[in-house]
Amino acid sequence: MSEEPIEDTIEAERPEEREEQEYGLTTPFVQAVLEAVFNEDAATLTALLEPLHAADIADLIEQMGEGPRSDFLALWGDNIDGEILTELDETIREDVIAALSPEALTEAVRELDSDDVVDLVEYLEEDQQEQILEALPAADRIAVEEALSWPEESAGRLMQREVVRAPEHWDVGQMIDFMRAEGQELPEQFYHVILIDPKLHPTGYVALGRILASPRRTLLRDIAEDSFRTVPVDQDEGEVAYAFNQYHLISVPVVDHSDRLVGVITIDDAMAVLDLEAEEDLLRLAGVHDESRVTDSVWETTKLRFPWLAVNLVTAILASLVIDQFEEVIAQLVALAVLMPIVASMGGNAGTQSLTVAVRAIATKDLTGSNVLRVIRRETAVGLLNGLAFALLMGLIGWFWFGTAMLGAVLALAMIINLLVAGLAGILVPVLLDRFNIDPALASGAFVTTVTDVVGFFAFLGLAAVMLL
Amino acid sequence: MSEEPIEDTIEAERPEEREEQEYGLTTPFVQAVLEAVFNEDAATLTALLEPLHAADIADLIEQMGEGPRSDFLALWGDNIDGEILTELDETIREDVIAALSPEALTEAVRELDSDDVVDLVEYLEEDQQEQILEALPAADRIAVEEALSWPEESAGRLMQREVVRAPEHWDVGQMIDFMRAEGQELPEQFYHVILIDPKLHPTGYVALGRILASPRRTLLRDIAEDSFRTVPVDQDEGEVAYAFNQYHLISVPVVDHSDRLVGVITIDDAMAVLDLEAEEDLLRLAGVHDESRVTDSVWETTKLRFPWLAVNLVTAILASLVIDQFEEVIAQLVALAVLMPIVASMGGNAGTQSLTVAVRAIATKDLTGSNVLRVIRRETAVGLLNGLAFALLMGLIGWFWFGTAMLGAVLALAMIINLLVAGLAGILVPVLLDRFNIDPALASGAFVTTVTDVVGFFAFLGLAAVMLL
Repeated sequence: MSEEPIEDTIEAERPEEREEQEYGLTTPFVQAVLEAVFNEDAATLTALLEPLHAADIADLIEQMGEGPRSDFLALWGDNIDGEILTELDETIREDVIAALSPEALTEAVRELDSDDVVDLVEYLEEDQQEQILEALPAADRIAVEEALSWPEESAGRLMQREVVRAPEHWDVGQMIDFMRAEGQELPEQFYHVILIDPKLHPTGYVALGRILASPRRTLLRDIAEDSFRTVPVDQDEGEVAYAFNQYHLISVPVVDHSDRLVGVITIDDAMAVLDLEAEEDLLRLAGVHDESRVTDSVWETTKLRFPWLAVNLVTAILASLVIDQFEEVIAQLVALAVLMPIVASMGGNAGTQSLTVAVRAIATKDLTGSNVLRVIRRETAVGLLNGLAFALLMGLIGWFWFGTAMLGAVLALAMIINLLVAGLAGILVPVLLDRFNIDPALASGAFVTTVTDVVGFFAFLGLAAVMLL
Repeated sequence: MSEEPIEDTIEAERPEEREEQEYGLTTPFVQAVLEAVFNEDAATLTALLEPLHAADIADLIEQMGEGPRSDFLALWGDNIDGEILTELDETIREDVIAALSPEALTEAVRELDSDDVVDLVEYLEEDQQEQILEALPAADRIAVEEALSWPEESAGRLMQREVVRAPEHWDVGQMIDFMRAEGQELPEQFYHVILIDPKLHPTGYVALGRILASPRRTLLRDIAEDSFRTVPVDQDEGEVAYAFNQYHLISVPVVDHSDRLVGVITIDDAMAVLDLEAEEDLLRLAGVHDESRVTDSVWETTKLRFPWLAVNLVTAILASLVIDQFEEVIAQLVALAVLMPIVASMGGNAGTQSLTVAVRAIATKDLTGSNVLRVIRRETAVGLLNGLAFALLMGLIGWFWFGTAMLGAVLALAMIINLLVAGLAGILVPVLLDRFNIDPALASGAFVTTVTDVVGFFAFLGLAAVMLL
């Protein structure tokens, strides 16, 4: 039974244990699977995996080391179906497809809807893509190729082409008769009937619940939803996901450049996109490539992380060049070398705070041309206030630590300057990058840290040179 | 017409312009609204706002400064309906509710479903909560109070209590007749009929599309979906959202401790939770309180950011104490002060990279007991490899900059040590925090930075003391 994991949680007694087991795979379960693989025991393996959702089997394959995975594929690979393939992470997917027999692959792919095939093949290597397209019946192949002609990450890639539509003059009875006649031919999941005019322009949509709750004579257009939106086929998928989340949509018709209905996007696909976009922002802000996964190999990971570290090295060297200018000052008062990282570090953290809030607000369209000036003023004021608070704290600490009131004063002043600048840079950098159509999540971090490091060291050592020597 | 913004985008010519205008509010539109508010022109205001979705009106109110907002509320407040109230950010919501007349508030609240009222009141101050509960009809009030008795952020808070259910022996004809009889009494949005046994235990569910596509005589249980899950009423909402995303659910029945059906959660609510959880992780990793918004006041923001900066100050002072131990070494060779921030900064960045990937993988259940050892080994190897790469680079730079090969060697060795430690700390800290049921997003950053700063300065200055003096 597929709800087994949930039943487990109900019976579990201690809350910590429940937390562990809610969904997904438990460690003992994965151990049992690995043991079956090790013993080449296909029957046990099937008994273990049969009840699982395809998404969980995909996670299981992802979590295996390379050795066990290839043993697993040799033993059980031909049971892998299309759904499991679509659930797999792209890096792993290529390996799995390569390990399948051509017959198993053909069978796996033929059972999928066209939008799932698009999902499956869009980022595959050319030859694997070709192999899968050839396995499809001609009609499906054409559908998939047409979908692939839309830009990457557009509504056209995301939509399913199977749409339940009806002329706008139909009534509920006609609709129900039509659907009963179609029977199994209808898409597996749909939530609305889309009304179209004779030119194929969508003019409204009707929730299935309203159709079921209305007498046969009711005109569909009379029970259509009040608010009705369509999405252009080349719209960015992030914008589509935003619209679903903002307007609580369940499904939305997709139209081409002549405003004709070409497909429909459902909320489950939009949810997956929203999740990916959030992941992208998170990883990019940390200077990690947005396709980084814990399943990547050592070499892959090293390559993906190197560029950001290289950028950071340049930043760090810039900061060092600033310090270098004050070598003589430090030589006279080594306490400066002890204290200077504090100023830089506080600035870096305050900058990251402003920056992250700004990047998120830009992504959710909460930070716009209308309120940007107010937010900039706010960040400046917050930087100043926190600067004053920490200036007081650090001034006292610096004073008592080194017994020089003047050193405390230098530290305090540098702290105010750097936290003020950090707040400003944290908001201005992402806003400006966004203006120039550069993803603020991707590049802001490096800029802001450079600013807070350079300003932090310069302010502290510069003030020290003037006030202490 | 509510789809106006989309039509705009179709007609816009330049792609950059389209990007700006996809959804949400344009700056000129907000200006027009503010002008109408300034002129106290309620008619224009209504004409502007009438076509907007409640979510966009809520965004508009959030983006106003405090002055214009209170003018706006005085002018147009009584047109604010329940839907707009639920869309508002919590901090702003309290102000808006306080500005509404008791009659307007009563009217706004009465039109909402009980789960929306829960959403609206759960984080309000006691007196505002009471005011709204009193405005409700008795039955609704009891429903809302019962929902509020479930733990915060649980399935019980998220679910709607209006459920369309049917005895498991019904056929399609009976179901359709029942729904037609209910008519307007049915919930506004539902996608499944839940089958229950005589004890109210849910036993399966049927998609509305299947009901519409099947002859009247078909038994509902014969067209029920293959896979069927329920959610316990006290399950954490994050787990619920995970299940929706992982298993592509559209709606899921909620059961109490006796496994009886008590409500249903739909994907649009799960999507909102998923979005919030991602936001929480993003903000927490940056050391920002997870309820920080660009709409917060200066004082609120300052207070929310202070604690993390204070934690960072302690961290930074710890690092300074390490430097302090080497004061004499620095006094003899000031170049060390110039170069030491590079080692610490590179370590901090590498640590943040590992950490962020690990935090995300823990959230998506991709990092589990089954693969944690392999991921730790991987992070160590990656740290070592990038350490070697940057050791070579920095070794050469240090050598040529200061003309001392030995200084380059010290820098290179310290770089290897710190990037290795950064990789290890980046994975171990979040994994351990998660084991102790502490949110890794919340606390990992401070720990990892402390480790990389302390190790960075200690390794560099320590090696310098041994190898150079």
